[in-house]
Amino acid sequence: MKQYCAGIDVGGTSVKMGIFSVSGVLLEKWEILTRKEQGGAQILPDIASSLREHLAGRSMEVSDLEGVGLDVPGPVEPNGHVHVCVNLGWGPHDPARELSALFGGKVRCEVGNDANVAALGELWQGGGKGFQSLMMVTLGTGVGGGLILHERIVPGAHGAGAEIGHIHIVEGMERVCNCGGRGCLEQVASATGIVSEAKKILAKEKRESLLREKGEELSAKDICDAAKAGDVLANEILDHCMYYLSWVMAAISMTVDPELFLIGGGVSRAGDILLRKISGRFRELTPILSKRPEIRLATLGNDAGIYGSARMVLDRE
Amino acid sequence: MKQYCAGIDVGGTSVKMGIFSVSGVLLEKWEILTRKEQGGAQILPDIASSLREHLAGRSMEVSDLEGVGLDVPGPVEPNGHVHVCVNLGWGPHDPARELSALFGGKVRCEVGNDANVAALGELWQGGGKGFQSLMMVTLGTGVGGGLILHERIVPGAHGAGAEIGHIHIVEGMERVCNCGGRGCLEQVASATGIVSEAKKILAKEKRESLLREKGEELSAKDICDAAKAGDVLANEILDHCMYYLSWVMAAISMTVDPELFLIGGGVSRAGDILLRKISGRFRELTPILSKRPEIRLATLGNDAGIYGSARMVLDRE
Repeated sequence: MKQYCAGIDVGGTSVKMGIFSVSGVLLEKWEILTRKEQGGAQILPDIASSLREHLAGRSMEVSDLEGVGLDVPGPVEPNGHVHVCVNLGWGPHDPARELSALFGGKVRCEVGNDANVAALGELWQGGGKGFQSLMMVTLGTGVGGGLILHERIVPGAHGAGAEIGHIHIVEGMERVCNCGGRGCLEQVASATGIVSEAKKILAKEKRESLLREKGEELSAKDICDAAKAGDVLANEILDHCMYYLSWVMAAISMTVDPELFLIGGGVSRAGDILLRKISGRFRELTPILSKRPEIRLATLGNDAGIYGSARMVLDRE
Repeated sequence: MKQYCAGIDVGGTSVKMGIFSVSGVLLEKWEILTRKEQGGAQILPDIASSLREHLAGRSMEVSDLEGVGLDVPGPVEPNGHVHVCVNLGWGPHDPARELSALFGGKVRCEVGNDANVAALGELWQGGGKGFQSLMMVTLGTGVGGGLILHERIVPGAHGAGAEIGHIHIVEGMERVCNCGGRGCLEQVASATGIVSEAKKILAKEKRESLLREKGEELSAKDICDAAKAGDVLANEILDHCMYYLSWVMAAISMTVDPELFLIGGGVSRAGDILLRKISGRFRELTPILSKRPEIRLATLGNDAGIYGSARMVLDRE
């Protein structure tokens, strides 16, 4: 095996790139803009030339790399095909093959979905280091997930592996989710979902709360901060939202029984208060488990994607 | 690889045993009694001597086998240890090691949980033949599950993989489940659960139904038969119970996204009516899926355990 590898996290605004040692040390990271015009035709060529430049700065070539991994913000078929990737302006692509061709076929390339790849990154060098299996739960604008079993991503047969944000969990919800369903986890446990539930509860409740001052500008962070400051209603709102997350996590435990759950994404910055609320409800919902998975915070933040992308090329079939 | 292997399904009443070709043809099957006295101390020695006898009848020895697999009705740790197996009278055991010792170390032995192993059997030579991943759902006295990904059992980190009968799914249920929880899938979708829900609904409803004649003797089969005969209330009861199963299956799809769901166990004898009810609700609960897993009936019945046990020893690490 060669000594280095590269990981690339392709987002709708910027592409994050990193060069790693195969032992997992990040040697250098940088970003370039995502050029979405012309159906995102320049994205892969931009990546290839930027990586070549940075390697040249270290007197290296792509053939010195064990491989180049990249992730994309959308579903990836088991064979590596991407049908459509709205945030990149892409129609059908075979990103790993195309990137490899841009490097003259001199380096192995692998592609994965961004949420799955981030989970692999956390397992490699983040909050999941030392574990072999984990479910990562990303609480951001939406709710994403990434499942790792035996140190491998579980992409699923139809690319829907770990699409946990769209697990139906709330009965009788009227609001429709982006996916077309009603009562998805994302609708109550994402940053957006927490705020939306809070507004509903604040409108119904008469009790005082620090949250009332925020008005229309109310954010998930405001709710977490108020809960930490002891605000009763903010705590009830967070309990309500995290109950559904715990419920989904309990169902996941009784399906794949991972060693560890990692909570990441913007909402996870609330930290311990979130873990306490989740752990308590999770325990109530899993009386059958004699040993329970650990529940921790993710640690790599926005770097999880480049770590996981790099880690992908270290697997030998 | 040798030409033959053996599969053993250890149940609380009888032990089913089979000799297979490694290509999956069942050459011979038989049963012996499960002797549970003295902490089930005779179970493994009985298995060893019965297998030796039957092999001798074919002029074979255990060393002619690629391996001997067995399953047990209880949790198996990832390292093969069994802490307790109530139905066999067992305390701690290491069944694969002990059985191998009884054969003088001359044959590889593997052990697995019965529900997981049955799923592997169905994948090998049953309703899942030709697939690489499936979730098997067994609707019997309880609700069991077995998850196979990449042709391997997913036992889980704490032995709780595919314990889908104890996924919490009904809010506000008062009755307590065997596991100590309330509102487990098993409480509404097992044979027992369906009957219990039916009795509740019949007591509340005033409408006429074929089910009223059955009184206390009402069975899940009666309910399925009445539903097939067009009984409106029986259909509503079955719809109600299968809704929760579909909901759990939707959550499983958005977690591991299997190629196939197989429905087995006594209740599955109801056949197509069950598949139709499940498929319809499953579709409603998974609007995000562009391609959906197939939902079929299991085909091996009580032989799934011996098939799956035999299949276990054909995997090379």
